[in-house]
Amino acid sequence: MGVGNIRVIDVKEGILADNDLRAEQLRERLRTQSTFLLNLMASPGAGKTSLILRTIGALKDEFRLGVLEADIESVVDSEKVATTGTPVIQLRTGGFCHLDAFMVEEGLSAMDVDALDCIIVENVGNLVCPAEFDTGAVKKAVILSVPEGDDKPLKYPLIFTVCDVVVVNKVDYLEGSDFDMRKFRERVLKLNPSAEIIEVSCKTGQGIDAWTSWLRKEIKSLLNDRL
Amino acid sequence: MGVGNIRVIDVKEGILADNDLRAEQLRERLRTQSTFLLNLMASPGAGKTSLILRTIGALKDEFRLGVLEADIESVVDSEKVATTGTPVIQLRTGGFCHLDAFMVEEGLSAMDVDALDCIIVENVGNLVCPAEFDTGAVKKAVILSVPEGDDKPLKYPLIFTVCDVVVVNKVDYLEGSDFDMRKFRERVLKLNPSAEIIEVSCKTGQGIDAWTSWLRKEIKSLLNDRL
Repeated sequence: MGVGNIRVIDVKEGILADNDLRAEQLRERLRTQSTFLLNLMASPGAGKTSLILRTIGALKDEFRLGVLEADIESVVDSEKVATTGTPVIQLRTGGFCHLDAFMVEEGLSAMDVDALDCIIVENVGNLVCPAEFDTGAVKKAVILSVPEGDDKPLKYPLIFTVCDVVVVNKVDYLEGSDFDMRKFRERVLKLNPSAEIIEVSCKTGQGIDAWTSWLRKEIKSLLNDRL
Repeated sequence: MGVGNIRVIDVKEGILADNDLRAEQLRERLRTQSTFLLNLMASPGAGKTSLILRTIGALKDEFRLGVLEADIESVVDSEKVATTGTPVIQLRTGGFCHLDAFMVEEGLSAMDVDALDCIIVENVGNLVCPAEFDTGAVKKAVILSVPEGDDKPLKYPLIFTVCDVVVVNKVDYLEGSDFDMRKFRERVLKLNPSAEIIEVSCKTGQGIDAWTSWLRKEIKSLLNDRL
């Protein structure tokens, strides 16, 4: 079904035991097709859609981008992405708190994947459930926004352990905040010593270059694997 | 088991079908014991623990308070509450993204419930799963912090529909933010016309009086029911 210009797909959960295998197969298929899939996770309001919009702005002339938006309800995020002209599909999870590989595959089946270099999956806003499910993505990013506090790696360790990169958003809120960046970095690196940590403000644009450099390198690395 | 001074209980999920019945029984038992149970829900970092600390500060001489802290991992919130001298139990959900009535009951079994007027349950940080499970609480509060954005009722409608009160925290961030309080209120009231909406800043103390007035009225209403 569609809402306005947005294609909306209602997805159901796959069988958990089969998910890891399905995710592995999906990742391999995408590698063969030279399409980089990024799983973007965060709390509600941490800035997932804002980071996607900044990424589109910075990389749209360099790569062919697509977006899979997941939400319990509503198409507000897809509508924002659609205004950029980027292909976007809305996955409606109808209460599920995460995406799995089956849901992502269903979303991708509605996109011209072969014609895209990079697809960003905006997972459901949640620091708990998305961490537990392999979506088939090549890389996993988590956004933590400054107002959420520097103690989140202590409280939601899994998501900071399984991710490849942590984007600290809303650094424009650092002034006057008690967020301790040094402590935050230590807590992340204790869980995940190889994690990249990138500080940005999607509002002001600060640090977006560092983020898009990371993403560019990862996309090119996948494309080069295929050459 | 314990971590420092904090009693920690590892909880498991009850059978979903039985949860509603169990929650109803728990609510009735607490009513008989004149103990008010508040289910406090929010995203990670919205300010659940800060609101609990403010509430303790304001009401500790008036009511006998207790706190049930739920977390996937870690006891950082309990430790903060314990410094106030308030009885606190840490529930460790080991990956579950919500509390149910069975878990709350297990936590309460470790407290002297009869000796308490009000127990605040800090649910797991998440706008999705906690909304779906009746914990046996008399009232449900959800905190939405300004940096999360005014569109959250569109994206997580269930939690704003089932709650009795919405606390908008971090109003000190309103200046320079694009958070539209009028739109936010409209969105909440469209889902839940009888919801109370209270604006606070746990940081500055602004609005805390309005919050504690609401809570005082609700606790007294339960106590009066028993007279």
